Amino acid sequence: MWLQTSCSLEFDAPVATPFLLMLRPRSGGQQWIAREQYVLTPSVPAVEFTDTFGNLCQKLVSPTGPFTIRTSADINAADFADAEPYARFVPVNHLPIDALPFLYPSRYCESDTFTEMASLITANCAPGYGQCIAIVEYIQQSLQYAPGSGQEIISAAEANTRTQAVCRDMAHLGIALCRALSIPARMVVGYLETLRPMDLHAWFEAYVGGRWFTFDPTQHDLEGCRVAIAYGRDAADVAIYTQFGEPLELKRMSVDVQRLPGPPT
Amino acid sequence: MWLQTSCSLEFDAPVATPFLLMLRPRSGGQQWIAREQYVLTPSVPAVEFTDTFGNLCQKLVSPTGPFTIRTSADINAADFADAEPYARFVPVNHLPIDALPFLYPSRYCESDTFTEMASLITANCAPGYGQCIAIVEYIQQSLQYAPGSGQEIISAAEANTRTQAVCRDMAHLGIALCRALSIPARMVVGYLETLRPMDLHAWFEAYVGGRWFTFDPTQHDLEGCRVAIAYGRDAADVAIYTQFGEPLELKRMSVDVQRLPGPPT
Amino acid sequence: MWLQTSCSLEFDAPVATPFLLMLRPRSGGQQWIAREQYVLTPSVPAVEFTDTFGNLCQKLVSPTGPFTIRTSADINAADFADAEPYARFVPVNHLPIDALPFLYPSRYCESDTFTEMASLITANCAPGYGQCIAIVEYIQQSLQYAPGSGQEIISAAEANTRTQAVCRDMAHLGIALCRALSIPARMVVGYLETLRPMDLHAWFEAYVGGRWFTFDPTQHDLEGCRVAIAYGRDAADVAIYTQFGEPLELKRMSVDVQRLPGPPT
Amino acid sequence: MWLQTSCSLEFDAPVATPFLLMLRPRSGGQQWIAREQYVLTPSVPAVEFTDTFGNLCQKLVSPTGPFTIRTSADINAADFADAEPYARFVPVNHLPIDALPFLYPSRYCESDTFTEMASLITANCAPGYGQCIAIVEYIQQSLQYAPGSGQEIISAAEANTRTQAVCRDMAHLGIALCRALSIPARMVVGYLETLRPMDLHAWFEAYVGGRWFTFDPTQHDLEGCRVAIAYGRDAADVAIYTQFGEPLELKRMSVDVQRLPGPPT
Repeated sequence: MWLQTSCSLEFDAPVATPFLLMLRPRSGGQQWIAREQYVLTPSVPAVEFTDTFGNLCQKLVSPTGPFTIRTSADINAADFADAEPYARFVPVNHLPIDALPFLYPSRYCESDTFTEMASLITANCAPGYGQCIAIVEYIQQSLQYAPGSGQEIISAAEANTRTQAVCRDMAHLGIALCRALSIPARMVVGYLETLRPMDLHAWFEAYVGGRWFTFDPTQHDLEGCRVAIAYGRDAADVAIYTQFGEPLELKRMSVDVQRLPGPPT
Repeated sequence: MWLQTSCSLEFDAPVATPFLLMLRPRSGGQQWIAREQYVLTPSVPAVEFTDTFGNLCQKLVSPTGPFTIRTSADINAADFADAEPYARFVPVNHLPIDALPFLYPSRYCESDTFTEMASLITANCAPGYGQCIAIVEYIQQSLQYAPGSGQEIISAAEANTRTQAVCRDMAHLGIALCRALSIPARMVVGYLETLRPMDLHAWFEAYVGGRWFTFDPTQHDLEGCRVAIAYGRDAADVAIYTQFGEPLELKRMSVDVQRLPGPPT
Repeated sequence: MWLQTSCSLEFDAPVATPFLLMLRPRSGGQQWIAREQYVLTPSVPAVEFTDTFGNLCQKLVSPTGPFTIRTSADINAADFADAEPYARFVPVNHLPIDALPFLYPSRYCESDTFTEMASLITANCAPGYGQCIAIVEYIQQSLQYAPGSGQEIISAAEANTRTQAVCRDMAHLGIALCRALSIPARMVVGYLETLRPMDLHAWFEAYVGGRWFTFDPTQHDLEGCRVAIAYGRDAADVAIYTQFGEPLELKRMSVDVQRLPGPPT
Repeated sequence: MWLQTSCSLEFDAPVATPFLLMLRPRSGGQQWIAREQYVLTPSVPAVEFTDTFGNLCQKLVSPTGPFTIRTSADINAADFADAEPYARFVPVNHLPIDALPFLYPSRYCESDTFTEMASLITANCAPGYGQCIAIVEYIQQSLQYAPGSGQEIISAAEANTRTQAVCRDMAHLGIALCRALSIPARMVVGYLETLRPMDLHAWFEAYVGGRWFTFDPTQHDLEGCRVAIAYGRDAADVAIYTQFGEPLELKRMSVDVQRLPGPPT
């Protein structure tokens, strides 16, 4: 499926302000970027680098006054998200080295406090994919998905005390529960073509059966047509923008995803 | 100063248990390992790898029954910890790429919740090293250092509600406050020759004036003769051992540091 | 200076053929990509990865029959190439770790065989930038620049026996001579706005005075308006395409660079 | 098999001389270092870093006058080198990213010039392990192994014109021929317990059937009990020491490997 994604941010900064951004999806094993743009208005110098998770990050200082960041991309994304109900738990000593960072607790996924709860939730599951499914079902039963209802970033422990949640909270809870079972789990921020109202989306991936699988507690039937912008341990790693210094108001943000008839020519 | 460090761990595991360890200090810019040993009894296969922070990590599965890990090293460590009162704050856009991960909140350093407090504590300081000193002094005034008083790992936010703290808690608080000011800060676990009673120690480093500086809220006069075992964002990254599966009792742990008369010959 | 670069390759493959490509310039400290496209016709799956030099590389299998790769980008490039006649030689023990790979001999830069010659050429130079300039002047005196005259990749040692050379040969010789003096030197393949006839171009960078500087033996006055596509030790590392299996004819290749009136809006 | 390896180097430098060394074997998937020492006499500051191949490297400046480097290690090495006659060729597009650098020609392995010869030698082989075996047999037929006969490093192309060769030359030729068939191949420098006369040894690994396999053209029956010190594309990457500035005489070098009765206690 060919998709055209776009995301724009508008600021009005009283003083020059340093930003770290993560707004350039990269071509990898799962998606191919055929066209892409990243326009800063006014144009300011920007430096790009790769973080420890492989995300393309941009470093810049906004000018004083109005500042707009507009990105868009034509991307070939997988039509379906793979599922493999019999994918098995991988013992820690057989995990690939680069999955290990996703075993540890992180800012918003206090997996060290979820051990008992994770065991209960997955009591009757075959170790692996089945445990992840049980976790997703638990989240769906205990939290009502309420798109756009939350602005402040809350942790898995906090989310677990609530009744409503945004996609990010549900992903945090899923990640914390997986890690509590020694299943590596990571957060993904990106685009989902079918999301309504359209917005950026967050879901998670868990490592079972020798690869990463997509899980999305906001959906009862897991859909494809996803574009990953950034991977990380939790929301602290994958903010599409982080602004330093005096807090700055995001005046406007728009996100869009359109199907394209085919590859660009 | 030449030091001989040693650390031993003794377990008695009812079942074979996967471990990730971080017990091999590595030679770097600050310390040189001239002799080293890492003995597993009974001997089991172990695999070593480097994590994203550059730490040497070991992966193994303990046998059923008694299992001992004994490490020791002869190390040339700096006699003094550098201080540079006029080292200046480095704006985020001028930070080196590898300092950036240490700007973000992490599991035990919820820097996103310390912004206001950090500003108050450092209200009259020149940005940079002086801010770090004010943070250390604040920690020393508000928390009494009580070696060995705490087993459970608590976060900076939790430490900030207490009156007593272990070295790890004080480091977490220092790190969270530095990051709240956009100063990269990281945790160090290692040996400190003058520590009494002898144990592993934790302190932190902050990036100001173009390099990392050592800060140790447990000391009024910053001492040298330190050996770093591991660097990370907080205690979640630098556990000297992480054990997976059924919780396992650490039956005995011993730590020792001795001065050596000179380099090994 | 805003530039629009483009490069297209046309193949007609009798059998499906694996390719490794390096055709996506990346945003870094020296250039910013505001718009970019990478179109495969027919569209085939492609995977992107980063090599050890930080280049974005693409892995794909061409279909049987006609296959076209068309790339283009709108890029903000530096107007001028910095020069700093007094930049000093950096002793090996003070070099940054990531400059060290560029000290060693490589496939087409047999620096181990150029020690004596490099000393002679730079006999009266202050160590550092001045040595590099002397090397460039030596190349210009001994080799006539003949754009497009050479297809086979030849090494620095071979180039040194000739009277005419393409940009790649001159860069190889410059790199070999620098390394023979313990000056890290690397090859750059990219676009040069003023090149006539237009083509891809190759030049080199040397590390003196604490940073990389651009040197281009094909020019008497060093020009800016350069876009780097790939960095490496020599031509073996920076081929814009490497094709595996039965040799395949490149039927057509076109390269273009145009000035843009300003940043994209 | 537990082995005790040691390697000492003795210099007498008229001036302080920068060195890059690679003399600390590291624990990995194939070998475990239980004890290790690295003694510099006189003691000078040294900095350790990891190169792009994962080797531990040391950077130091020798003092004026006598300077000795003595290293030793107690290591658990595999008793046997795996062989798997049916391991299959891995098409380039299915190779793991970190095997790709070992496909390209390098300083001493001009694989680009061996395409035809490699095809002839392996004409009747199943693609993969069988091709590697045919290459090893070809080398054994065309070159007589003459330990210690060569000091100057020669390339695969040069080795191919001779009748006698050292281990390094044979490895270079093996690597060049493998790469000419699109089989990733890399050089290993290390210890071989059965080598007579004892010395450092060089062999190569080729990537077939989804993993690296050991090949050693100096042996008719491939033996185990090997300890890897360094991996690289060829001898240019894995010199155990590289000395910069005025050439310095290595006054004495000694290498030893002893069997140990069992793991250290």
